[in-house]
Amino acid sequence: MTSAQIASAAPPRPGLMPLDEALSQLLACAQPLNGVETVATFDADGRVLAQDIVSALQVPPQDNSSMDGYAVRCADVRSPGAPLRVTQRIAAGQAGVALQTGEAARIFTGAPIPPGADAVVMQEDTVLVPQADASAVPEVQVQTVPQPGQWIRRSGEDVTRGACVLQSGERLHPASLGLAASIGLAHLQVQRKPRVALFSTGDELVMPGDVPPEAMPEGAIYNSNRFFLRALLHRLGCEVSDLGIVPDRRETTIAALKSAADHHDLILTSGGVSVGEEDHIKPSVQSLGGLNLWQIGMKPGKPFAYGWVQRDPVATDGSAPGRAHFIGLPGNPVSSFVTFLLLVRPFVLQLQGARQTQVQRQTLPAHFDLPKADRRREFLRVRRNAQGGLDLFPNQSSGVLTSAVWGDGLLDNPAGTTIHYGDQVSYLAFADLLS
Amino acid sequence: MTSAQIASAAPPRPGLMPLDEALSQLLACAQPLNGVETVATFDADGRVLAQDIVSALQVPPQDNSSMDGYAVRCADVRSPGAPLRVTQRIAAGQAGVALQTGEAARIFTGAPIPPGADAVVMQEDTVLVPQADASAVPEVQVQTVPQPGQWIRRSGEDVTRGACVLQSGERLHPASLGLAASIGLAHLQVQRKPRVALFSTGDELVMPGDVPPEAMPEGAIYNSNRFFLRALLHRLGCEVSDLGIVPDRRETTIAALKSAADHHDLILTSGGVSVGEEDHIKPSVQSLGGLNLWQIGMKPGKPFAYGWVQRDPVATDGSAPGRAHFIGLPGNPVSSFVTFLLLVRPFVLQLQGARQTQVQRQTLPAHFDLPKADRRREFLRVRRNAQGGLDLFPNQSSGVLTSAVWGDGLLDNPAGTTIHYGDQVSYLAFADLLS
Repeated sequence: MTSAQIASAAPPRPGLMPLDEALSQLLACAQPLNGVETVATFDADGRVLAQDIVSALQVPPQDNSSMDGYAVRCADVRSPGAPLRVTQRIAAGQAGVALQTGEAARIFTGAPIPPGADAVVMQEDTVLVPQADASAVPEVQVQTVPQPGQWIRRSGEDVTRGACVLQSGERLHPASLGLAASIGLAHLQVQRKPRVALFSTGDELVMPGDVPPEAMPEGAIYNSNRFFLRALLHRLGCEVSDLGIVPDRRETTIAALKSAADHHDLILTSGGVSVGEEDHIKPSVQSLGGLNLWQIGMKPGKPFAYGWVQRDPVATDGSAPGRAHFIGLPGNPVSSFVTFLLLVRPFVLQLQGARQTQVQRQTLPAHFDLPKADRRREFLRVRRNAQGGLDLFPNQSSGVLTSAVWGDGLLDNPAGTTIHYGDQVSYLAFADLLS
Repeated sequence: MTSAQIASAAPPRPGLMPLDEALSQLLACAQPLNGVETVATFDADGRVLAQDIVSALQVPPQDNSSMDGYAVRCADVRSPGAPLRVTQRIAAGQAGVALQTGEAARIFTGAPIPPGADAVVMQEDTVLVPQADASAVPEVQVQTVPQPGQWIRRSGEDVTRGACVLQSGERLHPASLGLAASIGLAHLQVQRKPRVALFSTGDELVMPGDVPPEAMPEGAIYNSNRFFLRALLHRLGCEVSDLGIVPDRRETTIAALKSAADHHDLILTSGGVSVGEEDHIKPSVQSLGGLNLWQIGMKPGKPFAYGWVQRDPVATDGSAPGRAHFIGLPGNPVSSFVTFLLLVRPFVLQLQGARQTQVQRQTLPAHFDLPKADRRREFLRVRRNAQGGLDLFPNQSSGVLTSAVWGDGLLDNPAGTTIHYGDQVSYLAFADLLS
């Protein structure tokens, strides 16, 4: 090899960009996608709402019983043991008639409170008065003195007519689907799913299944990043096209990028973004659009690329003119995993118009020592233990994906910071980051 | 109505069963289902592994560079500035040759360390020696004194050959798919999905879309429970058959239960399990199998039913003889939601053979007062605030589904316990319970 070859592969050392700045630059590029679709409320879990949901009714629609028992007039039950005549019976879905003095209504959970009644007595707090004639009007003795309003659910206590119960930009989850259904909505307007093209680059990569372990050539490794990236994208509500491993040749890479850009909102790759990496991704994206190579002050995950690929104006179907976003993640599995969670996740949520793109961090005690500080802000793979503290996975190398399987979250450790047992540290749960 | 009618609807008041006892009785009935299936690793997110995964190879397969830079012999660089001749160039997927004294190898991330080299120097810590003849063997000056082993990832540091990297009974998530792929597995053996039949009972229920809000008859309410139950079951990896609202008639209910039992592992209903509720679910299940009606000491969610429905031995396809499980949830939306998370979720995970059926609780400070203790163990809908404390949703009624949309978790408050601002309380995150 020659000096000239080496020189071209070794640019001057760049300054490290703080993660927060990288995130804010990235989010500034993530304009919400055009395109709203109507989906069945049944199928809207995980989608981002594209409308404010205003209720056309009260929930519950009228005052109703929250117990099985008897609707009574408190004025009739000034002391325990007062007998009342049971003159009606109201099940859920039925309507009672006005309750007169000395009367009680047998009532069931969810049934409307009859006019005149101002409390419900649980049936466990009543005794039926034995009667010789089973066809007589039954009587019930109330064993407790009821408080006005007891065991009554008020009309509109959950939702009042005209209230905005769910806002545009909210990410729907099971309870929100139930809430939308409770006000009669069988369909919801949601943002369309981002279309993401996923591929990996690197001649050393072999797809699992293509070559058995015992026949792997020297230097070859199995592609693992695409497996978790695809699952993570699905969890975020994306449609994923898996374009496989693109061989390290310029013309193949350019063709793959051009085709992907025409049909996708985002092209996501892993590998090929390190400083001097042997790869055609960077020049190919540059030739088709633009590319920013960042060296982010984080560990794992320093190299990261954001750019765009111009779409073919003829091939485009019209709904998506302009550019496709390009994000290049580092090739090391843990770097790829962590940069996805901290940068791509908020980006993809913002493409869908989600208002909340960040997860809430927790402050927990470290149950370990980290005597050696790193120059970069470090995201350590940790796990909550039974004592409520955080344990550290022993090997924090960016190649050790086991750490992300063992861990249940990331400890966000500021640059240059050592950790002593018992220190309060900042923790991000995978349960939040993966949903 | 007659005394006889009332008496039959009002059984004696039962004692309350502790939640932990209900859970342990329920789990004792949840034998893992027969049936393992092979799925593509790509499609295994959320599934429960049915095999131990033992690695047939080392990951990484050989010592390799974790940086772009130069592989060197430390003995050659005793002081900064030592010049080395760059005699080879090793990219990922290639193999180098032995490094001789005074030599360096240009090396890229992931490329194998050549024999003889014992450290990698980042290219940022090197300077190329200017040379008049660009075709000469280039030289590089190393600006730092390398430590043996630096920037070298050791063979097997992630996975050693023969190690069990994932165990039967683990629930797979994105990182575990990546780990399985990294040892060459394109397919995995997982437990089959539980087949769940879901229906609601109650003549007051109307499906959203069937009747517009302005035309709802008095006493009618929209069915909301099935919407979140279906989404929750999907998140737990179940196949869900939605059987709709079963009218409150005995023969319809029996027919629906019999048909559901033949083709499902679990029949899940909401509504119809209260003490005196007007419903045909309880006698129907009893006539087709057996039923335990529990009054659980929890709020929301006191009434809960576990039972079974005998399958038709002729109609059964052979793979699933015997019984289908039956679980009846309370009809109040929040009761239904909370009992699902605390009882049905572990049940369904155990049907899949999952080893971990409980979520980890956290201890957080309450940022509110709860001056009135409840006789039952209470699961309050709360939300973490920016100060790391818990806020309480103001209306904790079991009919107010808004509380579960607003909240991000449950505060598990022991029976008879008041809460003062600042008290440390036990918190269960929805992010954990919903995944």
